Amino acid sequence: MTDPGCYTRAAVTLADLARDLACRLEGDGSIEIARVAGIEDAGPGDVTFLANPKYASKLAATRASAVIADDSVTSAPCAILRTAQPYLVFANAVALLMPAARMAPGISPLASVDPTAELGGDVAIAPFVVGAGATIGVDCVIHAHVSIREDVVIGDRVVVQDAAVIGSDGFGFARRPDGTHQKIPQVGRIVIEDDVEIGAHAAVDRPAIGETRIGSGTKIDNLVQIAHGVRIGRNALLAAQVGIAGSTVLDDDVMMAGQSGVTGHVHLGRGAKVGAKSAVTKDVAAGHHVAGVPAGDVEEWREATVLVRRLPELRKAVADLEMRLAALEAKVK
Amino acid sequence: MTDPGCYTRAAVTLADLARDLACRLEGDGSIEIARVAGIEDAGPGDVTFLANPKYASKLAATRASAVIADDSVTSAPCAILRTAQPYLVFANAVALLMPAARMAPGISPLASVDPTAELGGDVAIAPFVVGAGATIGVDCVIHAHVSIREDVVIGDRVVVQDAAVIGSDGFGFARRPDGTHQKIPQVGRIVIEDDVEIGAHAAVDRPAIGETRIGSGTKIDNLVQIAHGVRIGRNALLAAQVGIAGSTVLDDDVMMAGQSGVTGHVHLGRGAKVGAKSAVTKDVAAGHHVAGVPAGDVEEWREATVLVRRLPELRKAVADLEMRLAALEAKVK
Amino acid sequence: MTDPGCYTRAAVTLADLARDLACRLEGDGSIEIARVAGIEDAGPGDVTFLANPKYASKLAATRASAVIADDSVTSAPCAILRTAQPYLVFANAVALLMPAARMAPGISPLASVDPTAELGGDVAIAPFVVGAGATIGVDCVIHAHVSIREDVVIGDRVVVQDAAVIGSDGFGFARRPDGTHQKIPQVGRIVIEDDVEIGAHAAVDRPAIGETRIGSGTKIDNLVQIAHGVRIGRNALLAAQVGIAGSTVLDDDVMMAGQSGVTGHVHLGRGAKVGAKSAVTKDVAAGHHVAGVPAGDVEEWREATVLVRRLPELRKAVADLEMRLAALEAKVK
Repeated sequence: MTDPGCYTRAAVTLADLARDLACRLEGDGSIEIARVAGIEDAGPGDVTFLANPKYASKLAATRASAVIADDSVTSAPCAILRTAQPYLVFANAVALLMPAARMAPGISPLASVDPTAELGGDVAIAPFVVGAGATIGVDCVIHAHVSIREDVVIGDRVVVQDAAVIGSDGFGFARRPDGTHQKIPQVGRIVIEDDVEIGAHAAVDRPAIGETRIGSGTKIDNLVQIAHGVRIGRNALLAAQVGIAGSTVLDDDVMMAGQSGVTGHVHLGRGAKVGAKSAVTKDVAAGHHVAGVPAGDVEEWREATVLVRRLPELRKAVADLEMRLAALEAKVK
Repeated sequence: MTDPGCYTRAAVTLADLARDLACRLEGDGSIEIARVAGIEDAGPGDVTFLANPKYASKLAATRASAVIADDSVTSAPCAILRTAQPYLVFANAVALLMPAARMAPGISPLASVDPTAELGGDVAIAPFVVGAGATIGVDCVIHAHVSIREDVVIGDRVVVQDAAVIGSDGFGFARRPDGTHQKIPQVGRIVIEDDVEIGAHAAVDRPAIGETRIGSGTKIDNLVQIAHGVRIGRNALLAAQVGIAGSTVLDDDVMMAGQSGVTGHVHLGRGAKVGAKSAVTKDVAAGHHVAGVPAGDVEEWREATVLVRRLPELRKAVADLEMRLAALEAKVK
Repeated sequence: MTDPGCYTRAAVTLADLARDLACRLEGDGSIEIARVAGIEDAGPGDVTFLANPKYASKLAATRASAVIADDSVTSAPCAILRTAQPYLVFANAVALLMPAARMAPGISPLASVDPTAELGGDVAIAPFVVGAGATIGVDCVIHAHVSIREDVVIGDRVVVQDAAVIGSDGFGFARRPDGTHQKIPQVGRIVIEDDVEIGAHAAVDRPAIGETRIGSGTKIDNLVQIAHGVRIGRNALLAAQVGIAGSTVLDDDVMMAGQSGVTGHVHLGRGAKVGAKSAVTKDVAAGHHVAGVPAGDVEEWREATVLVRRLPELRKAVADLEMRLAALEAKVK
């Protein structure tokens, strides 16, 4: 494969891209491609991808110049880069077009390396508190051991508690045919708006493409996981140890209680509430209060949990009915 | 509002406090108030608050000099600061009377800030390992990247594993009428008694008022969340990823298995045990072993989980009964 | 007790060890013992222990030179160190034979200690990024605030996200007769093989004996807990906030979804999958997909969760049957 460095985020023709990605090109090879983007965000000059049939219906409306797809896609409003492995090729496309700002090898003077430790070649050790290209607004308090990685944008009056990490790589890997995992470079944007508070040991991950965004006034407690591409509205409250998987969207005023979680690619409407320990697996309507694993209406869940505890007596009632019915059947026969 | 700085933790008259908090005063305005305290801990010179009707019964016995309350409170053994927003006014009262030791703006020489990063005005970046006024006893081991914040008290022979945070701000916010959240300054005490061990990435939060306390000999595993105002007795064991919400009390010898949680303001008696993944939502008696979500007696929970798996056969048994009963009804008619 | 320092990992006779551990010796006191090891890993020169009757069946096949056991053990293929407290004596044996590399008291020049903080005698404060004796392969990226503790071995092309901790002490304590907990020194090995990625705030604990190992190509997301003695195969995927308890083994290609957990001492076969929020409490066969708390077959779990939500209608159906059956019984009488 061509050295990713040779593109340096400049445009490449679709024909060259197809060759470098080992795809069959269907469409105009002279189109210039500069970026990889999601199917809904993509515009002219972007290549997008379709790896999950769940999103096939969105292809007709894409404004992308090209799509990476397998043979299940019969038509597209743009050029197609054919491959049997669209997700893997997407990973390669991000690596080619949007190379990650890799740390230069070396050891920061603020890192402590014991003289008896052995380090291999090209190791990079970095105690960055604030990485290259990061922007921090006025009147912020960044506590100890916080990591604000490269290019993160932080608004005004933001408080970050100790040891929080903003901008760590999202958990994105494409499975190779041999079962190993290829890292998808996580080179998207992260925006923390004004008046946000982020708890100790919270992690806000950087996406491969697009952005991760925390809306103004949102408060996040300790040990919370915000995966890549999550977008959270204004004034949301996330209690300790909450986890939100990739690309999920929380509208304004959402509240999630402790140790609850949300799967990826779902949408919680404005003011939705999630009970403690719950696992949200599908969209939640605005104002709705859900609980349970998988989460459903909170009142139904409460009723169900009471009945679960009473299952022994329900089973006994059924056994009694069976005996009485058998006796009656014998009598009537 | 008056600059919080002008009080510097000195006393203020109740009349002045009522004016600064925009409350209607019922009682003697000349009383001197120096502190905000919880309804049970408060004494003369303290103002307390009643924001949750659940605690109304405790008001009659308070020794506070004044209480912040709304119109649902008809009488009190002390002066009343009337407001429609008691929790929000409580937040303001803490800010006025107990100003947080805010970091001075500036960047610690032990912080690494990339030269290409942009920082707004008044930003404070601090890689404190041990904050101002903290006390650490003899023979302690504090591993790398630990944050021991201002005024934390740590006893003797305490071991703190890497990247643990002791003294981060509790997650306390009062909702303003416009839906945004006002931070309640977290300026209470934290005490870690002798022979405690605290795991990697564990977080022990500072309360707004009162204290967070970990009793001697208690051992806390990795990634555990101890919220503000939690009090834990001696020799408790908390496994990895446990979460304990605010103001909950664990007596001596409590054991909580991995990924379990306890809601706020409950009490676990001596030697209580909580099963893995469980969610405790109410008090647990001494010696009791609970499990499930919500947690109940462990044996009942085990029986219920077995019966849940057998629900398909129970439903089939009911369907069979329905058919047989209908047949019998037809015969007897 | 003899000063642990006097052994300095050299051999000691079994007679001396029995005396120092206050055990009754059954067998040849002249055997030289140099190490403590698990019942399956132990070989000549090792002392092992039997604290959990669950593992009694493995004693017959041990190659250890001696076993620490209570009176429930009637015979062994090696010498026996008798005690009523085998787990506590095991803790003491590790402390005697394998003393932990305790940090020398003192404060690292890369630690920040506020001048107003008070420190007791013999306090050690260490901002190690890379501890003594650690080994790191080629082409690794170690992000900010990572802690790689003493003697950890890391392969090539490993990526460690910000604030991860590798080598923190496992959560191992033996209960003393008075109810306090004695720390078992965690002095085993940790090996991170090639091409592993470890997420922000993930913790990989060091075992007391034996090793913790993450196989090549395995990817671990943020806030994951890997307890002491866990062994993970190649190309496994562990999503955010997963927890794996001590000594559990995951074979190649295992996948665990977010916020799931596995109890200690179990085995997940190759390619096993664990659903989000699930709690695995026993072995899982290769290729099997499990979910729920406790986890069982995923399809059975899905069916059960649907039926749990329908419990109100099932209960109503049973009540209807009871009424109809009573009416019929009255008619037939």
